[in-house]
Amino acid sequence: MIRFVTTNEGKFREVSALLRARGIQIERLDRPYPEIQADRLDDVVEYAVDSLAAEVDGEFFVDDSGLFIEALGGFPGVYSSFAYRTIGAPGVLRLMEGVESPAARFETVIGLHGQGKTQLVRGACRGAIAREARGSGGFGFDPIFVPEGHGKTFAEMTTDEKNAVSHRGNAARALAAVLQGR
Amino acid sequence: MIRFVTTNEGKFREVSALLRARGIQIERLDRPYPEIQADRLDDVVEYAVDSLAAEVDGEFFVDDSGLFIEALGGFPGVYSSFAYRTIGAPGVLRLMEGVESPAARFETVIGLHGQGKTQLVRGACRGAIAREARGSGGFGFDPIFVPEGHGKTFAEMTTDEKNAVSHRGNAARALAAVLQGR
Repeated sequence: MIRFVTTNEGKFREVSALLRARGIQIERLDRPYPEIQADRLDDVVEYAVDSLAAEVDGEFFVDDSGLFIEALGGFPGVYSSFAYRTIGAPGVLRLMEGVESPAARFETVIGLHGQGKTQLVRGACRGAIAREARGSGGFGFDPIFVPEGHGKTFAEMTTDEKNAVSHRGNAARALAAVLQGR
Repeated sequence: MIRFVTTNEGKFREVSALLRARGIQIERLDRPYPEIQADRLDDVVEYAVDSLAAEVDGEFFVDDSGLFIEALGGFPGVYSSFAYRTIGAPGVLRLMEGVESPAARFETVIGLHGQGKTQLVRGACRGAIAREARGSGGFGFDPIFVPEGHGKTFAEMTTDEKNAVSHRGNAARALAAVLQGR
């Protein structure tokens, strides 16, 4: 059985539910791994997979996500969780004051490893930074992100609504397609 | 001869000059190494040293620095160079608008490896975030950092003035003391 290596139980719940709905069972492997500093999620995920491949048997995957704001040169990007813990949503809203374009995207990269090779699958969700935080669902920057074609922030959506359009939802569906296609 | 592992020529120049003034010669080893995501510079430096120790012969050291702003929960900290490349000094100044305390500190951690063991030495420089950017010397966030007891920003100082009080200067002096004391 494929294992999702993550210390984050919420993430595991979200992804395993999405895969289960497509007939794919996964297990959780709760162990940390090194996350490097890099501008691209791809590099973080590849390094993590390489580190784990030396120590973990069988097929596994890891994932990483970030919020990339165009007007801020991709900030907070790969470092979204650090930015969330320090300046938070209020800090990001302050950085957006007077900024012309609120365009942003959430991205997820999943690194799948098995039989000696690694495959990356991706999911993205384009949208915009809201003018103020709204909603109490989700986590992280969800209250300030409005996906394209929607009036609600991620934090105002139900889990199902969010999964239907979210970066992690899209990445999980891409992973399911890979697993089902072989 | 001890080698300073760094891809940054300016950093090498600064540190080697400080050590040379204390009679210590070093060489540069220009090669990249993995930098992990962590909240503390110590963790970044220890991981880098461990990675390099497996591949580099002889005695060597690496360093890492960051700007930690108290009112922003330590932001941008370990990720200062990314924050500089994305939101820059204007972004940090904006985050400080209306903030009561401008207290901040620059920190450098040097990891020295030799004879199978690693030693960390540190240097810090306490100060404050300026109200606006001033000066054209130095690099990174130097134009917005005023060291304690000074009216000038790092970017308004000569290299010698800056080295006399800076985090990296203090760390290099601590390294010299370690090397001379054995």
